[in-house]
Amino acid sequence: MQCERIDRETLYRGRVVDVWRDTVRIRADGESRESRYDVVHHPGASAVVPLFSDGTVALIHQYRYPVGDTIWEIPAGTLDGGESYEACAARELEEEAGCRAGRWTHLTTFYTTPGFCDEELRVFLAEDLTECQPANEEDEHLEVVRVPIGDALAWAASGKIRDAKTLLGLFAARDYLAGAGGWR
Amino acid sequence: MQCERIDRETLYRGRVVDVWRDTVRIRADGESRESRYDVVHHPGASAVVPLFSDGTVALIHQYRYPVGDTIWEIPAGTLDGGESYEACAARELEEEAGCRAGRWTHLTTFYTTPGFCDEELRVFLAEDLTECQPANEEDEHLEVVRVPIGDALAWAASGKIRDAKTLLGLFAARDYLAGAGGWR
Repeated sequence: MQCERIDRETLYRGRVVDVWRDTVRIRADGESRESRYDVVHHPGASAVVPLFSDGTVALIHQYRYPVGDTIWEIPAGTLDGGESYEACAARELEEEAGCRAGRWTHLTTFYTTPGFCDEELRVFLAEDLTECQPANEEDEHLEVVRVPIGDALAWAASGKIRDAKTLLGLFAARDYLAGAGGWR
Repeated sequence: MQCERIDRETLYRGRVVDVWRDTVRIRADGESRESRYDVVHHPGASAVVPLFSDGTVALIHQYRYPVGDTIWEIPAGTLDGGESYEACAARELEEEAGCRAGRWTHLTTFYTTPGFCDEELRVFLAEDLTECQPANEEDEHLEVVRVPIGDALAWAASGKIRDAKTLLGLFAARDYLAGAGGWR
């Protein structure tokens, strides 16, 4: 199957995502036809598992309006302008958790919701951490809590942590630390 | 922090998601103010790890226009009308993988992208499988492949599988089968 975009209309522009309506020519099984796909466009995001030398990780406890819930997450955010995934991870770690890292390891990359959205998310392990002044954005009501990584994994298993990137980041970190070499 | 919605405007209506613009009264730290939040509304989704008695899982290889890629996923789909998560899982298993299950186990529930979207996704393990006629929707170019679960886990670790729900479903199934009792 081949897909060639022949038109794009922007139906919605938001602060984080846009919605595109693409007209596409599809070639499959020797036939050609036109179709339309709506796509939620996201610039991409980075997330960080901040692992301190005492075996704790920094988790963010914050209210998320879309889900109407205060939830546990690892520090994360959307790529800003032409920013790289690595720069975004370092910025979010500093802004949300008030830390800088001396050592970065890529843990995993995934599509969050490939059925309707193009978001790609990359998760990094941050080690050799030093604390600096957090630069929380005014709108973000968030609390930073240091939790032993074993407890965080138990929270993931029990359903106390319900955020996809946080679950994946913690389990990838667990496998990395167990010597499996992490995921790619 | 308390959030009370005082108005909702629908900015976009799509086949899978809508976009809402909510006007909200926020009470925090003894103060009250109005704010606006845009939310991508998704009805919710179910996904299934179909585990056969020979130790293989059924994976779907399908082209996903939003990410411009043919990717590996577990059977999954969006709740249809007032459908329950359990009914959706059974329907998608039949439609996409051509199977019915005699035994269902809830593995994990998570928010896919709580920063901008309200989607909640529940993953189930399906066992005691019998094959029936797949009822693929015409628009879905998908191929069903049976893979030993150990190979699927290796594909997850290597980056060959890059879909969040599939990674989480496979790792939750691994923990469940290892006797950890699964996640909740």
